[in-house]
Amino acid sequence: MIIIGGTATNGIDENLSKIISVPLLKVEHKVFPDGESYIRIPQHITNQEILVVQSLYPPQDKHFVELLLILETLADMKNNKITAIVPYLAYSRQDRRFKEGEALSIKTILNAIARAGADVLIVIEPHKEEELSYFGKEVKIADPMPELAKEVSKKVEKPFVLAPDRGALERAKRLAEQLNAEYSYIEKERDRDTGEVRIKNLPELRLSGKDVIIVDDIISTGGTMIQATRAAYEHGARKVISVAVHSLFLDNAYEKLINSGVKEIVTTNTIPQDPSKVAVVDVSPAIARKI
Amino acid sequence: MIIIGGTATNGIDENLSKIISVPLLKVEHKVFPDGESYIRIPQHITNQEILVVQSLYPPQDKHFVELLLILETLADMKNNKITAIVPYLAYSRQDRRFKEGEALSIKTILNAIARAGADVLIVIEPHKEEELSYFGKEVKIADPMPELAKEVSKKVEKPFVLAPDRGALERAKRLAEQLNAEYSYIEKERDRDTGEVRIKNLPELRLSGKDVIIVDDIISTGGTMIQATRAAYEHGARKVISVAVHSLFLDNAYEKLINSGVKEIVTTNTIPQDPSKVAVVDVSPAIARKI
Repeated sequence: MIIIGGTATNGIDENLSKIISVPLLKVEHKVFPDGESYIRIPQHITNQEILVVQSLYPPQDKHFVELLLILETLADMKNNKITAIVPYLAYSRQDRRFKEGEALSIKTILNAIARAGADVLIVIEPHKEEELSYFGKEVKIADPMPELAKEVSKKVEKPFVLAPDRGALERAKRLAEQLNAEYSYIEKERDRDTGEVRIKNLPELRLSGKDVIIVDDIISTGGTMIQATRAAYEHGARKVISVAVHSLFLDNAYEKLINSGVKEIVTTNTIPQDPSKVAVVDVSPAIARKI
Repeated sequence: MIIIGGTATNGIDENLSKIISVPLLKVEHKVFPDGESYIRIPQHITNQEILVVQSLYPPQDKHFVELLLILETLADMKNNKITAIVPYLAYSRQDRRFKEGEALSIKTILNAIARAGADVLIVIEPHKEEELSYFGKEVKIADPMPELAKEVSKKVEKPFVLAPDRGALERAKRLAEQLNAEYSYIEKERDRDTGEVRIKNLPELRLSGKDVIIVDDIISTGGTMIQATRAAYEHGARKVISVAVHSLFLDNAYEKLINSGVKEIVTTNTIPQDPSKVAVVDVSPAIARKI
């Protein structure tokens, strides 16, 4: 078995190599003056189990093309069993056609990864599990909740896990079980006149004196998390901690979250982060459990 | 028949629509704050011959992903025959493995386009014709030489067409035939000690008093063209005109070409150009001849 470190690994390839004691080979990589990527696998690999690590954080399209180049080059080397480990799976929120004629982008991305030569796919905390069926071959989901829970437990006394919407409830349950905490979710409703999305009043939600951990798969512009944070404080939360597996922090999301009252943010290294701002948990142990 | 105008067409979709009198439908397109592309085909299309126009000029990877999204969405609409018209085919110079383990990038790009749903591929002046076999289905090559020749003929009195290397000779011949001009090529040699590439002395090359037209498939950083320009003047050229089907003009290539003595540059619209600097020929008529 060998690990191939791609062009966007954020150290996960090296960490995984140590944890599972499998040698790591880094791809050779450069970008030509016109912007085209160049990839070389600096060793001939055949009859091997290969773990390719390549995350699809921004610039997503460049990292995606580089993943295809790596996979097809390895497939050309013959008789390899190739597992693509994609810690952050870009385009995973484009998983439905809300309007007719919309691109089902995650299908195109997963199809291309499968066709380029990946036999198995490992992802961390996908947006929706169902969407992974577009890969069409074996998929494994690595769950970083144990590591996230361990980090969160250092920061809370009376934990209560809150999902920012009903869809995130299963995720909240997994984290709550690790923390031996209660959990619940908040409900949104859309104003029929203005179209505005509001948090429903939830009288049964008793957060008084609790350290509320709001958990979501992704922080993008932070809107969902900020709304949930406000609701948590309205229901009596002592402090709010924000947990997201993938954090993009777009449009000053970090500053907005802190301003909305989030005391700490715990996330993972599927996307590069500034460790002076957020607590960063390594997903490599979660990946290792799936190998 | 319908033309789908992609996200990188540089007006070729509109010009083609007029020339062949086929309606044009533009894709809906936006880029999310995180950098992911969104594509929508704003009309249900089925049982149709569809011409998708999408060039792969920089940012190549983004335009490539958008092409895949367009193709797969159209393929999902069922029973369409889809022709992908790719005026500038990115990654086409990565067509060989110079070192073992290098990605054969053009294979990956063409495979992905085919698998996403394109039944036919039309490209303009590929780097090497052989590489197009990686598409695995029907390929048509559109030749813009008649239009380039027409533009060049306005600028020369005693034309002589010169290929900057032996590989470009067939291209030079095609242009020379259109211009009723003589043609030849220059040869390069590598210094065994320094590794430097020089133009061979070619005593038989008589360019005295001629308007020398140097033609290549692509101007990237302009190095090849500049070397050939110097050689042309050394052999007595009156003036040099530079003709390239695709022009990227990287690293101030335009300025360097002009400084090396190129009097005019004639190129096409497969990549967006500044018409105040270069004469831009539309490739749509060449595409139309293949439909």
